[in-house]
Amino acid sequence: MFKINDNYLKLPGSYLFSTIGKKVAAYQQANPDKEIIRLGIGDVTQPLAPAVIDALHKSVDEMGHAETFHGYAPDLGYEFLRSAIADHDYKKRGCDISADEIFVSDGAKSDSGNIGDIFSVDNKIAVCDPVYPVYVDTNAMAGRTGDYIPEKQAWSNVVYMPCTAETNFAPELPKETPDIIYLCFPNNPTGSTITKDELQKWVDYANKVGAVIIYDAAYEAYISEPDVPHTIYECDGARTCAIELRSFSKNAGFTGVRLGFTVIPKDLKCGDVTLHSLWARRHGTKFNGAPYIVQRAGEAVYSEAGQKQTGEQIAYYMNNAKTILEGLKSAGYTVSGGVNAPYIWLKTPDKMTSWEFFDYLLEKANVVGTPGSGFGPSGEGYFRLTAFGSYENTVKALERIKAL
Amino acid sequence: MFKINDNYLKLPGSYLFSTIGKKVAAYQQANPDKEIIRLGIGDVTQPLAPAVIDALHKSVDEMGHAETFHGYAPDLGYEFLRSAIADHDYKKRGCDISADEIFVSDGAKSDSGNIGDIFSVDNKIAVCDPVYPVYVDTNAMAGRTGDYIPEKQAWSNVVYMPCTAETNFAPELPKETPDIIYLCFPNNPTGSTITKDELQKWVDYANKVGAVIIYDAAYEAYISEPDVPHTIYECDGARTCAIELRSFSKNAGFTGVRLGFTVIPKDLKCGDVTLHSLWARRHGTKFNGAPYIVQRAGEAVYSEAGQKQTGEQIAYYMNNAKTILEGLKSAGYTVSGGVNAPYIWLKTPDKMTSWEFFDYLLEKANVVGTPGSGFGPSGEGYFRLTAFGSYENTVKALERIKAL
Repeated sequence: MFKINDNYLKLPGSYLFSTIGKKVAAYQQANPDKEIIRLGIGDVTQPLAPAVIDALHKSVDEMGHAETFHGYAPDLGYEFLRSAIADHDYKKRGCDISADEIFVSDGAKSDSGNIGDIFSVDNKIAVCDPVYPVYVDTNAMAGRTGDYIPEKQAWSNVVYMPCTAETNFAPELPKETPDIIYLCFPNNPTGSTITKDELQKWVDYANKVGAVIIYDAAYEAYISEPDVPHTIYECDGARTCAIELRSFSKNAGFTGVRLGFTVIPKDLKCGDVTLHSLWARRHGTKFNGAPYIVQRAGEAVYSEAGQKQTGEQIAYYMNNAKTILEGLKSAGYTVSGGVNAPYIWLKTPDKMTSWEFFDYLLEKANVVGTPGSGFGPSGEGYFRLTAFGSYENTVKALERIKAL
Repeated sequence: MFKINDNYLKLPGSYLFSTIGKKVAAYQQANPDKEIIRLGIGDVTQPLAPAVIDALHKSVDEMGHAETFHGYAPDLGYEFLRSAIADHDYKKRGCDISADEIFVSDGAKSDSGNIGDIFSVDNKIAVCDPVYPVYVDTNAMAGRTGDYIPEKQAWSNVVYMPCTAETNFAPELPKETPDIIYLCFPNNPTGSTITKDELQKWVDYANKVGAVIIYDAAYEAYISEPDVPHTIYECDGARTCAIELRSFSKNAGFTGVRLGFTVIPKDLKCGDVTLHSLWARRHGTKFNGAPYIVQRAGEAVYSEAGQKQTGEQIAYYMNNAKTILEGLKSAGYTVSGGVNAPYIWLKTPDKMTSWEFFDYLLEKANVVGTPGSGFGPSGEGYFRLTAFGSYENTVKALERIKAL
């Protein structure tokens, strides 16, 4: 008789954003006349930039003629895209990352989950708390996290690094030594960041204890302050301890286009084995590349026009962030984030739990946000709003919240 | 200190088609004047059908306007595509599969590998031998296959079901009971098929012993004979034992577009747990959907124009298959396949090993094929040619082979 992966049964509830989707759908069905504003899931609303649209049309035309048709892509991504990434995101910032250390994928969510494949089940993970739930959930599926303890809303075998008002929303080096450390800056969900000096401490620590850092920089395009690193490879020694995950979803609105990449420097080794070789093997065996037309769209993001146009989109969203931040402050909320990230993190009022506030906001203001507790135990009592709505809806949502 | 997944180190060499790619590149570099014809990897060469191109352009335009922009797709795929699949591929054939039992993905290779996630490491797999290498390689990565025994070119803990001339290229029910049975019909690489009555025996067997069948029907569009099933759900009882993998790569030339789907009937359970719920959880947690524009392209394949145009592509490739089959026969080769599948399977001449014949054909005829031994131990002494080249190249390749 076949046996299932029992680890799946340990997961509490469904994936956070699936749960939210179902709750909102149920409310809308029961209240068809209500106009719901979604500031919950981090999905963008602005259309693709003209330069990206042009690249898509052009490459679609190529696919319609035998002479310019493209079949299977190279395992690790087209050279034109990997070179554009290496030049723009790394060499221009003085980071020593070459095109063949970049693995193009269908997005950072897939990579965040799949990267676990190349590690033994026997590794202890450390995560910022709260954080993007995919890190913990996918490690739970792999059997790395022990058992879920409902009363703690936490797993028995995970090193949680609280990032609350008390720690200024930054993690402290853990007391118990982990093997794999997930860091996400600018942070999802708190919108907090880390300075280059602080990040250097993590790199030094990882090299010292033999840990690997999985650095999620999906929101780097939203950084506005000068001392915040755009990539972990700005730090000395990161080539021997860090994997970086990047996404086109938030810097270019590719949530429905699907494109991301992972960087694994060839100096990152376990004994004689490079993690680069293991990830290359996984890519070659369990994946067949991102679509040609999508890789051309990604290339267009790096063009002069693409940079200008996507820069305007980011400015648009960051204006929303400012609107939310200032609106909530004036309404008496305790808020943070929203300066180097498209997320605003607020303390729930009147000691409501995160889910109580979710229901309250959905029912009283018809605004959808994300309960902080969905991101980890230290997220309880907090709530996330995103700047990815339209400006009109953002203003309207804030008016409704202020009127509560 | 972090630990890697040691199972990766047990894998011999690199993924088959990566190895071939490297060998061909090295030969081409050493012999820049030689015109190499590739009938090795199963990549298509015909451009996308006009109906597909139109759908891509139309949906790209939608992505350029806020009112019609599409962000994150529904976890399991857009309803418009899942319904088209359910209607066309299942209901029209009298099979009881509903749209919500279909999971849209970025391709059957990803699904073939990722499906292992939902099963315990403690399952014994059975595979046709030879077969598409992804099944065994991905199970090896998960630690299910024991150790690789070089002298046998086989894994210690895999049930191999030989499909050679002696068995008429069909598998026999295994003596040792497996937990997970991979079947691929029309078969890659042999091009052989199975009748509905024969497949019914496998379904009955799986239900009897509590095994799950992972049925790869990526080549169903190439079936030309009437008694060959297009889906395993034509068999009674398949809903309680079978998962089906499907691809748009070969029926519509989507190798560089990336689209596929997996069917998991809700009646397929381990105790009280449906595999459908586990796969839905994996999809929701480790994947973010296929691109909207690609799902619209998939929908267009099912339109009247799309069916006509992709049908013509298949006829074109099958004419190549006939050319190869007849050409090789007239040159004295022992061949099979090529009637219900785009693959021609030949016995290597003069007792050459599969890789010896690969080198021979590459060097003497500048034709690339795939060594049978790359598909499993019983593939040794065989060789695969594909019908996916252009007609002109196919004819030219056959002329060169005949002239050897």
